[in-house]
This record gives sequence, C-alpha cells and structure tokens, in this order.
Amino acid sequence: MTDDTLYMRQAIAASREAMLRGDMPFGATLVKDGQVLQVSGNTQRSTGDCMAHAEVELIRVARRKLGASALQGATVYASGEPCAMCSGTMFWAGITRVVLGATTADIAQALGDPTLPITCSEVLAGCQPAVQVDGPLLRDEAVAVLRDFAQHAAQHAAQKQSP
Amino acid sequence: MTDDTLYMRQAIAASREAMLRGDMPFGATLVKDGQVLQVSGNTQRSTGDCMAHAEVELIRVARRKLGASALQGATVYASGEPCAMCSGTMFWAGITRVVLGATTADIAQALGDPTLPITCSEVLAGCQPAVQVDGPLLRDEAVAVLRDFAQHAAQHAAQKQSP
Repeated sequence: MTDDTLYMRQAIAASREAMLRGDMPFGATLVKDGQVLQVSGNTQRSTGDCMAHAEVELIRVARRKLGASALQGATVYASGEPCAMCSGTMFWAGITRVVLGATTADIAQALGDPTLPITCSEVLAGCQPAVQVDGPLLRDEAVAVLRDFAQHAAQHAAQKQSP
Repeated sequence: MTDDTLYMRQAIAASREAMLRGDMPFGATLVKDGQVLQVSGNTQRSTGDCMAHAEVELIRVARRKLGASALQGATVYASGEPCAMCSGTMFWAGITRVVLGATTADIAQALGDPTLPITCSEVLAGCQPAVQVDGPLLRDEAVAVLRDFAQHAAQHAAQKQSP
C-alpha cells in the first residue's frame, strides 16, 4: 500500500464518520513531510455552516492548531473532489498538492444536490504558485460511502412518507 | 445613480477602509430586497486568516447576525472580482447574483500577488441553482483603490530599503 493510498483511506474513513453523525459524507487528510497533521470531516449540518466542507474544516483546524506556516507546501487528500470554494481555500492556504477520491461527477451522480460542476483542476489551472491535482484514487471506496449516504437518505424519506 | 451603482460604491468605500487599516483593498456589500444587509472589508492581514477575503467575511458576518436564510437569493457587490474561494462560498450560501467592480485581470495587474486566474463567471458556469454575474461596474473607481494600495506598498518598500 503506497502512502497516498494510506492517507486517502483516512480521508474516506473520515467521510464515513461524517455520514454517521449526520453530516455530508466527505473527509480530508492533511499531510506534510510524511506526517499526518490533521484529519477532518464535513460539519455542515452539525454546525449549520454552509462553508464547513471537509477541506475548509481541515484548513481552519490545522491553522488554529499548528499555525499558518504548517500548511505551506502541504498535501490534502480529499475523499470527494474539492469544490471551487475548497480549491480556492486550499490555494490561499499554501497547499501545493491535492489528491482526490470520488470525482465531481461521481458526487453529483450519487447525491444530486445543488451542484457547482467545475472541477478542482479547472479551478486551479494556471494558478501561481501551482497546485498539482492527482487522482481519482480509491475512487470505488470513496463512491461507496456516497452511495450509502444516498441510500440511507432515500430510506429515511420513504419512512417519513409511509403512514 | 442606479441602485447597483450605490451599492457598488459602498463596496468600494469598504475596500478603501480595509486598505487604510492595513488589510488587502477589497470590500463587498450584501443586498436583498433593496436593503443593505451588510458591508464588509477584507481582514486577512488584521486577523491572520487567509480565508478572510471581503466576500467570505461578508457571508460569515451576515450569517451570524441574520441567519442563513437571509442570504438566500441575495446579491453581493464586490469591489474586486470574487476569486474561486469566494465564488464558491457565495454559491453555497445561496447568493443568486454577483456584481463585480475591478476584474480578476485588473487585480493581478495592480497587485501582482499570487494569483488564481479563473474568473467568477468561469467558476460559476453551469451551477445549479444559477448565479448571475454582472459587471464590471465602476471599474475605474475600484481599480483606483488597488493602484493606491500598490503605490503605498511600493513607497513603504522603498523607505525600508533607503539608508
């Protein structure tokens, strides 16, 4: 198992934990110099904060705990492809590599929520300093969590409607 | 003077205030149903928070003061074209119209800082629900603040280097 696989699996585990506490099913891992600095999940629903995607949460917590300089040149592993907000946030925080699991199209297909279709690579194209975007990595494992989430949501809706 | 002009001028005034307190020269106005709900400036330097662009600050403060529903269907007037982070943040917050002053190219030309060259329209292309992007509006007034900022920064640098 490569290091990339290991870190992505932690991000996917965080996506499942987020789902289990009622949040959107996304997680992210922050790594620098071979060290895991932070693992965070989405907290949008539990905090009522529309910005609390896993990657933004990751950056906020790491900056508070470790200081802004810890983020410079770090890598983020995201269970779901970062949206434009998250891609921009990572850029301004000094992240220089992003590895993604499920793609933007996978997310839209599984969840069908309001979507921002632009990809992470498109958002970061030509940015200076450059950010390398890799993946999809462990795509099937990442998508499996999204499907579980969608299935639970559908069951919940059906239970609500039944007499 | 149209209402758009009025609201944009408030955003540009906030950009000048941000500059005068040592922050990056950007401001934004939040308007809904003909009412100004919030005016905010960039606070990146004064707070040490790389995410504290004027638009993110605007969304955060308005959500805290007025609740998330106040943002639904609102318009943001931004003295400088919103970056990918800010465009995505506004989308998730439920903003449905953005009016910009200085363009992304104007900002890069005036400030020469690390840049994320993608435009607000490109970021939001095809998003659902849609966000209308208008402008540039009062571009010369908005760019004048950026130029003042750059000039002061250059003078400051020259003073530091002089014996």
